[in-house]
Amino acid sequence: MKPVILTGDRPSGPLHLGHYVGSLANRVHYQQEGWKQYIIVADVQALTDNYEHPHKVHDNVFEVACDYLAVGIDPSKTTIFIQSQIPEIADLTMYYLNLVSVSRLRRNPTVKTEIEQKGFGDAIPAGFFVYPVSQAADITCVKATTVPVGEDQLPMIEQTNEIVRTFNRLYKKEVLNEVRAIVPEVARLVGIDGKAKMSKSLGNAIYLGDSADVVAQKVKSMYTDPNHLKVSDPGQVEGNTVFTYLDIFDTRKDEVAELKRQYQAGGLGDMVLKKRLTEVLNAFLDPIRTRREKFHNDKTYVMDMLKQGTAATREVTSRTLQEVQDVMYLKY
Amino acid sequence: MKPVILTGDRPSGPLHLGHYVGSLANRVHYQQEGWKQYIIVADVQALTDNYEHPHKVHDNVFEVACDYLAVGIDPSKTTIFIQSQIPEIADLTMYYLNLVSVSRLRRNPTVKTEIEQKGFGDAIPAGFFVYPVSQAADITCVKATTVPVGEDQLPMIEQTNEIVRTFNRLYKKEVLNEVRAIVPEVARLVGIDGKAKMSKSLGNAIYLGDSADVVAQKVKSMYTDPNHLKVSDPGQVEGNTVFTYLDIFDTRKDEVAELKRQYQAGGLGDMVLKKRLTEVLNAFLDPIRTRREKFHNDKTYVMDMLKQGTAATREVTSRTLQEVQDVMYLKY
Repeated sequence: MKPVILTGDRPSGPLHLGHYVGSLANRVHYQQEGWKQYIIVADVQALTDNYEHPHKVHDNVFEVACDYLAVGIDPSKTTIFIQSQIPEIADLTMYYLNLVSVSRLRRNPTVKTEIEQKGFGDAIPAGFFVYPVSQAADITCVKATTVPVGEDQLPMIEQTNEIVRTFNRLYKKEVLNEVRAIVPEVARLVGIDGKAKMSKSLGNAIYLGDSADVVAQKVKSMYTDPNHLKVSDPGQVEGNTVFTYLDIFDTRKDEVAELKRQYQAGGLGDMVLKKRLTEVLNAFLDPIRTRREKFHNDKTYVMDMLKQGTAATREVTSRTLQEVQDVMYLKY
Repeated sequence: MKPVILTGDRPSGPLHLGHYVGSLANRVHYQQEGWKQYIIVADVQALTDNYEHPHKVHDNVFEVACDYLAVGIDPSKTTIFIQSQIPEIADLTMYYLNLVSVSRLRRNPTVKTEIEQKGFGDAIPAGFFVYPVSQAADITCVKATTVPVGEDQLPMIEQTNEIVRTFNRLYKKEVLNEVRAIVPEVARLVGIDGKAKMSKSLGNAIYLGDSADVVAQKVKSMYTDPNHLKVSDPGQVEGNTVFTYLDIFDTRKDEVAELKRQYQAGGLGDMVLKKRLTEVLNAFLDPIRTRREKFHNDKTYVMDMLKQGTAATREVTSRTLQEVQDVMYLKY
C-alpha cells in the first residue's frame, strides 16, 4: 500500500531555508515518488499562539502557499488545504478530547518544551494546551499513514496513535489507522547566528523570497569561527555556519573539501568563503525566487488552488467524519 | 428587545420530576411568554463523561425529546436541536479555547465540584475539562441573550461572558453579546431519599415516564421523619420529603396546611400522606405520560421534529460562524 502523507505548516510567516532543508525538499521528493500527499496550512493552529494577530495568520496563508509552489510542490499531484475551512477537524478534535486526560497532555514533552520556550507558564491558552489532540484530528481526517516530523515532534505522533488505538477499541471498529513517523536525515538547519535552529522568531533566517542583496547581507553577518581574526590564522570548520551551509547547498563537494583544508591550515579569509556561499545560495534561490514572484503576482491563481485543494480534502474528511459518527452513534 | 433563551440537557437518561420543577416548567412558561427559545440536546457534551457509552447517549436523545414534547414544549414555538449536528459549535469552541487559560479553567468552581463528584482526579478527560468553553459556543452560536441556570451553574455563565468580552475586544467588533443568567425560584428538587437533589445517578428519581404503579412504589419508599414510628407520634414536617413534594405538586394548599398541623400534633400516619401524594403525582403525571407514550410510539415524528429544529438552528449558527470568521480573518 502506498503511503498517504500528511505534512504542513503554521502560517505565521513566510518559509525559509530551514523549512526547505527540513521538510520542503522531502515533500518534493514524496511527490516525485508518486505518494499521495496532503499539505495542511494550519491557520487555526497558528492562532493558538497568534490569536491576537489574526491578520498576520491570514496573510501568511497566501505567503506559505507561494513558497510551496515556488519550491516545486505541484497542486495536480499534492493536495494543499486550509485547516479552518475543514470543519470536520474541529468535530474530530472535540471527540478525541474525551480520550485524552489533562495529565497526559501535561506530560507531552513537545508541549512542555514549547510552553517553556514561549514563557506561557500557567497562563497557557487552553487551545495551545490541547493542540496535540487537534493535530491528531489533522492527521486522521485524511486517513494519513505517514507523517514526516523532526525528532522533537515524535511525542505528537505517539499521542495521535494513542488516540487512534483508544478510539478503535472504545467504538469497536478499526475506523482510524495508526500512523508512522518519518524522521528526515537533515531535519534542522542552524540559523545564520549559528546558535539554534533557523527560525523566524529568532531573527536568524534566510527566506525563500529574500532578494539576492538581502541574502548577501545575511551571509556577511553569518557566524564563522570567532577566533579566526586574521586571514593567516588557522580557522575552525566544525560549528562554522558558512561551512555547514556549503556542505548542504554547494554541489562541488571536492572544492568544499579543499576549502576546508585551507581554512584549517590558515590563509583563507571569511570574506572569500562568504562570497562563495552567497553565490551558491543565490544560484539555488534564483529559480525559486522567480517562481515565487510569479505566483505572488497572481493571487487569484494561488487562492483558487487552495480552494480546490480544500474542496478535494473535504471529500475525504467528510467521509471520515461520517464513519466516526457512525461508530459513535452520532447519527439520527 | 425580547430575550433569546438557550437551555437544554445532556441526554444521559430520561428526564424526571427534578428536571420538571427546575427547568421544564419554566421552559413552558417562556414559550407562553412568546420568547424565542432554543433547547439544545447536548449529546457531544454528554459524551464528555459517557464516551464509553455512546449508544446510551444516542438512545436518550429520543427519550429526552419525548419528555420535552410530553410536558408541552411546542416545536412550532421552541426550537429543539441536536448539538452534534451543528458543526459550528465545534469550530467556535476551537477559537474560544485560545481565549481561556488552563489555570482559569482549573479555577472554575462548577468544574472543580464536578471533578470531585465524579472522582476524576488528574485523569479528567480533556473534553470534560474544557466543557465550559464548549458551553460558551452552545450559547453564543444562537446569539442567546438569556440562560436559565441553577445557582451552581453561575460560574459557567461568567466564563461565557469573559470569552465574549475577550473575543469582542481582540477582534475589534461586537460580534458576540454577553448573556444574562436567570436563576429560577425552585431550581432543585430533593430526591425521594430526601438526601440530595433528584438525580439519575443517585437512583432517587421519579421519571416523567414512570407508570402509576412505579410512582406508587417510589412514594412508598420515600424518606419522611425517621422518628415518626407510630401513627400517634408527633412528626416533623421540615425535611420531610413527602411534604416537600406536596408543597410543590398539591394544589389544595389549605388541605396541605391542615395535614401538616395534624402530622405535627401526632395522629396522622405516613401511609395516609403517601397515598395522597401518590394520587397527586399520578394526577399530575397522567396527561404527561399519555402524551409521552403517544410520541414514544411515533419515533419518525419525533426525529423529524429534531431534524427540522436542527436545520432551523443551523441557519442561525452558520451566520454566527461567518461573522466570527470574518473578524478573525478566517475567510479566503
